[in-house]
Amino acid sequence: MKLLRVGPPGAERPALLDGDGTLRDLSAFTDDVDGTLLSDAATLDLIRAAAGAGVLPPLGGTGDPTGLRVGPPVGRIGKVVCIGLNYHGHAAETGQAVPTEPVVFLKAADTVVGPDDTVLVPRGSVKTDWEVELAVVIGRTARYLETDEEALAHVAGYAVAHDVSEREFQIERGGTWDKGKNCETFNPLGPWLVTADEVPDPQDLTLRLWVNGEPRQEGHTSDQIFPVAEVVRYVSRFMTLYPGDVINTGTPAGVAMGQPEPKPYLRPGDVVELEVEGLGRQRQELKGA
Amino acid sequence: MKLLRVGPPGAERPALLDGDGTLRDLSAFTDDVDGTLLSDAATLDLIRAAAGAGVLPPLGGTGDPTGLRVGPPVGRIGKVVCIGLNYHGHAAETGQAVPTEPVVFLKAADTVVGPDDTVLVPRGSVKTDWEVELAVVIGRTARYLETDEEALAHVAGYAVAHDVSEREFQIERGGTWDKGKNCETFNPLGPWLVTADEVPDPQDLTLRLWVNGEPRQEGHTSDQIFPVAEVVRYVSRFMTLYPGDVINTGTPAGVAMGQPEPKPYLRPGDVVELEVEGLGRQRQELKGA
Repeated sequence: MKLLRVGPPGAERPALLDGDGTLRDLSAFTDDVDGTLLSDAATLDLIRAAAGAGVLPPLGGTGDPTGLRVGPPVGRIGKVVCIGLNYHGHAAETGQAVPTEPVVFLKAADTVVGPDDTVLVPRGSVKTDWEVELAVVIGRTARYLETDEEALAHVAGYAVAHDVSEREFQIERGGTWDKGKNCETFNPLGPWLVTADEVPDPQDLTLRLWVNGEPRQEGHTSDQIFPVAEVVRYVSRFMTLYPGDVINTGTPAGVAMGQPEPKPYLRPGDVVELEVEGLGRQRQELKGA
Repeated sequence: MKLLRVGPPGAERPALLDGDGTLRDLSAFTDDVDGTLLSDAATLDLIRAAAGAGVLPPLGGTGDPTGLRVGPPVGRIGKVVCIGLNYHGHAAETGQAVPTEPVVFLKAADTVVGPDDTVLVPRGSVKTDWEVELAVVIGRTARYLETDEEALAHVAGYAVAHDVSEREFQIERGGTWDKGKNCETFNPLGPWLVTADEVPDPQDLTLRLWVNGEPRQEGHTSDQIFPVAEVVRYVSRFMTLYPGDVINTGTPAGVAMGQPEPKPYLRPGDVVELEVEGLGRQRQELKGA
C-alpha cells in the first residue's frame, strides 16, 4: 500500500493512493498514519482488504482532491536516526574512509516537512547541500535485534527522504554533525510510505536527484555499505526504535560537497527534485530563512 | 512555581509543588505540563494566582499522594539538545580543548524518564557514565535570537537532568557522540520544572552528584564556558527551538571517564543521586537492560 497524509501542515488527513492514482480517505480507519497505525497489523489488514475490494471512499467525497498539499507520510514521528557515509561512492567523494560500523547521528522530528514543501536555506549558510536517501519507517518496537530477518520484520515501510545538510555547520563549527542537520525544514519526507510487502528488496532501488533540472545524484541501494537490515539491527543495540521512528539510510555520491570548486551549494530560488524507485518523487523550492 | 507530573509512565497528571511541600492538582487548568502550557502565559498566570490564593486542590483529593511516581516534569518533549564540554573543569578532565563555540548534539525525547526511574545499563556496555546537568526548558518558539535578553525570555524554566552516557559507544564506535547518548532511559529529568522567575541567575547554581553515596561531581554553573543565555541564542541559529524542547547545558568535572584507571563506570546495582541547587534531587538505581 501507498499510505500518505494530505492537507495543511499539522492538520493532514490519512489517505491511501490506489493503483489507479486515486486518493482514498482512511479517516474511517485511523486518525493518522503514525506509529499507532503502523504497529496495528489488524487495522492495516483491514485497510488492505478494503482497498482491494474497492470500497474506500475517494478523498474529499465527490470533490476534486487535486491541489491538496501532501504532508510527510508519517505523523507524530518520535525521532529520525541517520546513517552517515553509507554508500561506497559517497564515502569516497567526501574523502572519508569506509566506516567499519555504521555512523549514526540524529535529526529532530521537527525538521520533517512534506515532500514538496519549501526548504529554507539557513541565515548565514554558504554550504547548504542535498542528499537523496532511502528512509525506513519502523513498525514495531525494536530493542537488541539479533538477526537480519528480525530487523526487516520491524520495518513498516519505506519512503523518500531528503537529508538536507549545511556542511559548514556540520563540519567546520565544532562538535558533532547534528549542528548542520537540524535546521528548520531540513528533512522533506514522502510523498508516500510504501508498505514493506511492496518493496521486495530494499537493496535493489535506484535513487536520483536533480538540481534545477540537472542530474546530480544517481545511485543504487546495492552500493550501501550497511544494508537496511543490518542498519536496523545495529541501531537497535544503541537505542530503542519505536513505531513511527524513521531511519535515513545514507546518500549515494553526487552531493555538492563532493564536486570541484566552486561547489554548487544550494541557494534561494534553486529547485531540487528527487526520487527513489517505486517510492515517489519530491520537489522543493529553496527560500531564505 | 515548581511544576511536575505524577503517576504511571505515559499517564502522568499535571501538578504543582507548593511552598508547604504539598502536591496540588492542576488538572482543572491543563491536561499536561507540556509545550502548550509552557507557551500559554495566561494559563500560567492563572495557576500562579490560584496557587498564591491557596485554592488549588491537593492531588488525589483527600487521598494520600505519597508514593506516587514522579515522571519527567515536561510531557510531549520534541527534542533534547545537548551542549558538550561546556564546563572548564570537564573539558580539562577529558583532555579536550576548550571549545570556541558550543558543541551541540541531540538526544531523542524517548530517552527521557522520571527522576527516580530505573536507568538501564545497555547490553554490552562497559563504560556507562554519569553527568549531572542543568536543563533549560523552552517556553516560546525560538529562531535566530539575537540578544541574551531575548534568549532568556524564551526560557520557561529549569530542571535537573542526568545526561547518562556510554563512553565506548560515544567515542570508540565511529561516528558522532549520539550513539552513546540515546540508549533507553538515558535522560532522567526532574523532579520539577522550576519556572524561570524563581531562578534569578542560572549562572549561580551548584550541581552535585553521588554514586553509591560517594561524592563524584560538585560544580557550579559559573564555570560554564557558554552560559545559558548564550547557549539558547546560539542553538536558535542552527535549529528552531519549540515550547517543551529541552537543552541539557553540559556537565561539570567528575565523571567516571575523567578518573584514574580503573575508571568507576556504572554497573547494575549502583545508585546515582544528583541535584541542582533549588531544582530538586534525583535518585536512580542502575539495572541491566
